[in-house]
Amino acid sequence: MRVHNFNAGPAVLPEEVLLEVQKNLFDYKGSGLSVMEMSHRSAEYDQIISEARSRLLKIMGLGDDYVALYLHGGASTQFYMIPLNFCAENKVANYIDTGAWSTKAWKEAKKIGVKYHLAATSEDKEFTYIPKTWQLSENPAYLHITTNNTIRGTEWKIDPDVPADLPLIADMSSNFLSRPLDFAKYDLIYGGAQKNIGPAGAAFVVIKKSLLERQNSNLPTMMDYNTHISKDSMFNTPPAFAIYVIGEVLKWIEEKGGLEAREEYNRQKAAIVYDVLDNSDFYRGTVVPEDRSWMNVPFRLPAEDLEKKFIAEAKAKGMIGLKGHRSVGGCRASIYNSLPMKAVEDLAQFMNDFEKANK
Amino acid sequence: MRVHNFNAGPAVLPEEVLLEVQKNLFDYKGSGLSVMEMSHRSAEYDQIISEARSRLLKIMGLGDDYVALYLHGGASTQFYMIPLNFCAENKVANYIDTGAWSTKAWKEAKKIGVKYHLAATSEDKEFTYIPKTWQLSENPAYLHITTNNTIRGTEWKIDPDVPADLPLIADMSSNFLSRPLDFAKYDLIYGGAQKNIGPAGAAFVVIKKSLLERQNSNLPTMMDYNTHISKDSMFNTPPAFAIYVIGEVLKWIEEKGGLEAREEYNRQKAAIVYDVLDNSDFYRGTVVPEDRSWMNVPFRLPAEDLEKKFIAEAKAKGMIGLKGHRSVGGCRASIYNSLPMKAVEDLAQFMNDFEKANK
Repeated sequence: MRVHNFNAGPAVLPEEVLLEVQKNLFDYKGSGLSVMEMSHRSAEYDQIISEARSRLLKIMGLGDDYVALYLHGGASTQFYMIPLNFCAENKVANYIDTGAWSTKAWKEAKKIGVKYHLAATSEDKEFTYIPKTWQLSENPAYLHITTNNTIRGTEWKIDPDVPADLPLIADMSSNFLSRPLDFAKYDLIYGGAQKNIGPAGAAFVVIKKSLLERQNSNLPTMMDYNTHISKDSMFNTPPAFAIYVIGEVLKWIEEKGGLEAREEYNRQKAAIVYDVLDNSDFYRGTVVPEDRSWMNVPFRLPAEDLEKKFIAEAKAKGMIGLKGHRSVGGCRASIYNSLPMKAVEDLAQFMNDFEKANK
Repeated sequence: MRVHNFNAGPAVLPEEVLLEVQKNLFDYKGSGLSVMEMSHRSAEYDQIISEARSRLLKIMGLGDDYVALYLHGGASTQFYMIPLNFCAENKVANYIDTGAWSTKAWKEAKKIGVKYHLAATSEDKEFTYIPKTWQLSENPAYLHITTNNTIRGTEWKIDPDVPADLPLIADMSSNFLSRPLDFAKYDLIYGGAQKNIGPAGAAFVVIKKSLLERQNSNLPTMMDYNTHISKDSMFNTPPAFAIYVIGEVLKWIEEKGGLEAREEYNRQKAAIVYDVLDNSDFYRGTVVPEDRSWMNVPFRLPAEDLEKKFIAEAKAKGMIGLKGHRSVGGCRASIYNSLPMKAVEDLAQFMNDFEKANK
């Protein structure tokens, strides 16, 4: 029996995709070998990666002024590559700090000796909200935001306005493709695949080609975006199987009606969980209502003992991954793209039952 | 029907492993979810990665003075990390250049501005042999070799002797775990997994702990070996599924009798193909006999047209991946750890038949 998987990432994948991958695992569509055994230079694999790249741009509604890559290294390597590639010596890397991963992003700029500036931060209230205003530095190289904070459960609900000549860069790891965004506002969008669009092991990077005019030169080969762009995301052997599964998830997103359908589905799912929080004085949401994430719902119970009991009883009922991140404690339900409605319905029922039994 | 897979990498995996992975793909051992959906912080996944790390050291016969990591980024990222981490400012990175990937390794040192020295090179004869002597620079930081050249089909048959205080570093991507080596002679062993031990998407890195005393400080987080060592190979989300499959391949290697059994099996396989070359004036091996690789067997036919015909007819008979690397042309049979004996037997038969028909 499938569990209800509320893991924050790696996370739930669509059942249909898993079954398709399983069916083809030993012999991909009659080719006589597994995708894991295919040369990345073969015609079969070239079709897999090319489609995964073009389908991503199509779903995002972006044209050929953008390029989509799948890279090794996770979002954490992007924290390094972004200032290395796109902050010139006389410029300042600007960040809005909404906690956790966005903090890691600017700290990496600092670590490699790039001039940086926090244009805004929500640290004053433990990152429980998204800043609505910000102050850019002189000579900004770019503005970097993190569109969803997986740990704190905050989410940007609008795509920020920036000056026309200022590149906007976003880590979208944990809410990518969960609803339509004005993707064309962004110059670089990246993230780890393992939350909304696939398994761990590949980072997606979508770059507006005009951004490359601002690239620094003479970079380490693998850290240079142009290395990967010039070789169609295959400078070295790519994380081939992860990209194949991502491609299958993207097909699934398309078949289910694209981002509009995702938005409607995710809105409903989030409403079911937040309604429990809002109609309870037992559970307490930790985020200001207007900035609540549709993907990660952190909440507290009246006592830590009760939280432990809640997590254990949920697990016994086949609901896993409800423990909050170790840095903040409490509970968290991650309710990504692929999580079935039934999972949040069962969670809501369990939350109500648990409240009655333990109040 | 399974093809005979002579791809140079990604490459053939053991049938037993693929069937086991397929069986567990939708529901890993009754856990109710796929390995691709598991939190990397879960007890189930922790067991998978911990076993994959400890089993690797066990197979190599190494003790706890070594640490095994599985990292993002492929061997190509290691080309950068090695001089970055282990060549101090007053030192010189030493390389033996046996072509292709070893050339890329020293060129990366050059690119990032590290002082480097070619202690030996076989470029004078198009990298068709392994240098038997070398000349270290003053103040060497380390000596780097590539134990098997995938493209040229040369292989180090002995583990080189170096001064006791000089770290020996080796890229073993394409002959890793194909036979016992004196692994304890090496201070850092690395490679892409996608040739002998798993699918693409993870690099293995085995480090002697004493090497870390020579590490440079203040490095980009993801490029710092200590980041990954201090977090048990899970600083960020690892390429989790690739590591799981590697673990299954390592179990398979153990069950089949470890490296001694691999050596015997691979020796036999290589002999079958090289015997055809040696008993023919139609096929021509391109490597000096004593340095021939057991893993990659490049060969030429009397004319390029015949090579094309050979590759096409082989493919029609279910033997794929026999085209030589685009940089050198000709034919190449990659006959890695997991390739069944039957595949080389059928290849030898086909080569003899083709020779008779086309001589």
